[in-house]
Amino acid sequence: MDLVIVGSVAFDAIETPFGKTDKIVGGAGTYISYAASFFAEKSGLVSVVGGDFPQETISELESRGVDTAGLQIKKDEKSFFWKGKYHNDMNSRDTLVTELNVLGDFEPILPEAYKTAPFLMLGNLAPAVQLSVIEQFDKRPKLIAMDTMNFWMDSALEELKEVISKVDVITINDEEARQLTGEYSLVKAAKKVLEMGPKYIVIKKGENGALLFDRNNEVFFAPALPLEEVFDPTGAGDSFAGGFMGHISATNDVSFNGLKRAVIMGSATASFCVEKFGVERLQNITEKEFDERVSAFVNLTQFDITLDE
Amino acid sequence: MDLVIVGSVAFDAIETPFGKTDKIVGGAGTYISYAASFFAEKSGLVSVVGGDFPQETISELESRGVDTAGLQIKKDEKSFFWKGKYHNDMNSRDTLVTELNVLGDFEPILPEAYKTAPFLMLGNLAPAVQLSVIEQFDKRPKLIAMDTMNFWMDSALEELKEVISKVDVITINDEEARQLTGEYSLVKAAKKVLEMGPKYIVIKKGENGALLFDRNNEVFFAPALPLEEVFDPTGAGDSFAGGFMGHISATNDVSFNGLKRAVIMGSATASFCVEKFGVERLQNITEKEFDERVSAFVNLTQFDITLDE
Repeated sequence: MDLVIVGSVAFDAIETPFGKTDKIVGGAGTYISYAASFFAEKSGLVSVVGGDFPQETISELESRGVDTAGLQIKKDEKSFFWKGKYHNDMNSRDTLVTELNVLGDFEPILPEAYKTAPFLMLGNLAPAVQLSVIEQFDKRPKLIAMDTMNFWMDSALEELKEVISKVDVITINDEEARQLTGEYSLVKAAKKVLEMGPKYIVIKKGENGALLFDRNNEVFFAPALPLEEVFDPTGAGDSFAGGFMGHISATNDVSFNGLKRAVIMGSATASFCVEKFGVERLQNITEKEFDERVSAFVNLTQFDITLDE
Repeated sequence: MDLVIVGSVAFDAIETPFGKTDKIVGGAGTYISYAASFFAEKSGLVSVVGGDFPQETISELESRGVDTAGLQIKKDEKSFFWKGKYHNDMNSRDTLVTELNVLGDFEPILPEAYKTAPFLMLGNLAPAVQLSVIEQFDKRPKLIAMDTMNFWMDSALEELKEVISKVDVITINDEEARQLTGEYSLVKAAKKVLEMGPKYIVIKKGENGALLFDRNNEVFFAPALPLEEVFDPTGAGDSFAGGFMGHISATNDVSFNGLKRAVIMGSATASFCVEKFGVERLQNITEKEFDERVSAFVNLTQFDITLDE
């Protein structure tokens, strides 16, 4: 087991200016797993679903090297469900329905094989659940990354801070970094978060890319690929996290240069995710398409300036 | 004469969350000239001021290689004046006072020496003024760049379109690109603008960097340098334009790779501008500081990924 992934496995119903879906498969854990499976040899998913969740999705994840021994199935209950509608600019959305269902009293249980994995990606979930997963490891993973959201800052700030103090990498969006620290400047916000425990912070800015900071004032920026159309932003941040940690677990490289490459891989993965509803596009990325996408990032960002000595 | 610069030379009074100024020297032409002077051997400034404008600023520009034979001085009139206040997020501002004064009936007159210059930067001004400058050239410059703003889209759209049809590079911000084209997607907006005439478009996104597009679907992105504090954003776009065209005129390189380098130079120049009120910081950049800033851009954006063949 190279990478343990924790996050919701659920149903979404999504409306964007381009169309709407009925209940489709979604959830942070699902997006992270699909994204990571493009890189990671063997990952394991810790989550919970109801009896209504399609077995074919579970089988497909298994076929991609995602072990689902950590995925609890509560046959008589229903899976988590979220319904949302994006505004015209795609940068904001309204939540129309949230049904916690099986997620309401979720107690994660790590299979034995997961407890020595070197990499852990804690997708957005209740801080208490994230903490329980960390505590079940026999040996602290080499690198723990976490995602979270403003909801937990409002409702479980102290527990959230405890999780933050125990991880190596935190990924949050710009508004959340501001809320968490009270700093408008993202440079200042990053510094404050790094004082809370993590070695690295990735601040996600949606269509404006992502910033990676370390404690030595190193900063790396990856733009989002300029796309003609963002069809459905749902899961973009989770796909980023999955590509990021999938690449790190595949290379075992936790240097700053390795993390920079992982940020590019995460950004490339996210750029596919937003092209279709749900995980559809993540299910069908070819190696050739992925390499072309990474080439596009190289062309987008690389320049040749030689400074005089 | 390598580079002709057109734009307002004026007074500003600025209020930001960090402080406020009385009347200080400002104006697009001023910022562009200071920024370009860091690169260009010899530039010429076309503008108009009143008798109230300080001779010492004019002398300082001259000492930096900015010829001011094209700067009309109307002794009995007053210089253009703008007063504005930035909101807390620094991304938006309110205009409190606009006094056109000498700019109201400005008719640009190009000195003979300017009429064969290979490079022309049309700063934000009335499209009719920009057009008049283009028409006074004996020989079309090798590269003409223009900046503009939403005000002219609202008040002089047809004239603006005529100018746009005659230039090689247009720099506008994201909201202006959307307004000009009716396209929310910046990729689509860029395509539409390029159909209006220019070979290149630079879409400025403020703290979120700048995108350079050509007609062959090449795209380059330069982030803004993440700064702890943006003290005063006034003139950032003009400093970008000045650094961009100053670098191009100094290198005579109008290839796409040359333009990419110029975008980085423009971004680096703008990153200095916002550190102090007005042109103060642009007046005091050392070579060493500039090289360090460019190094920071290299570190911020460059990564090393080798794709399998």
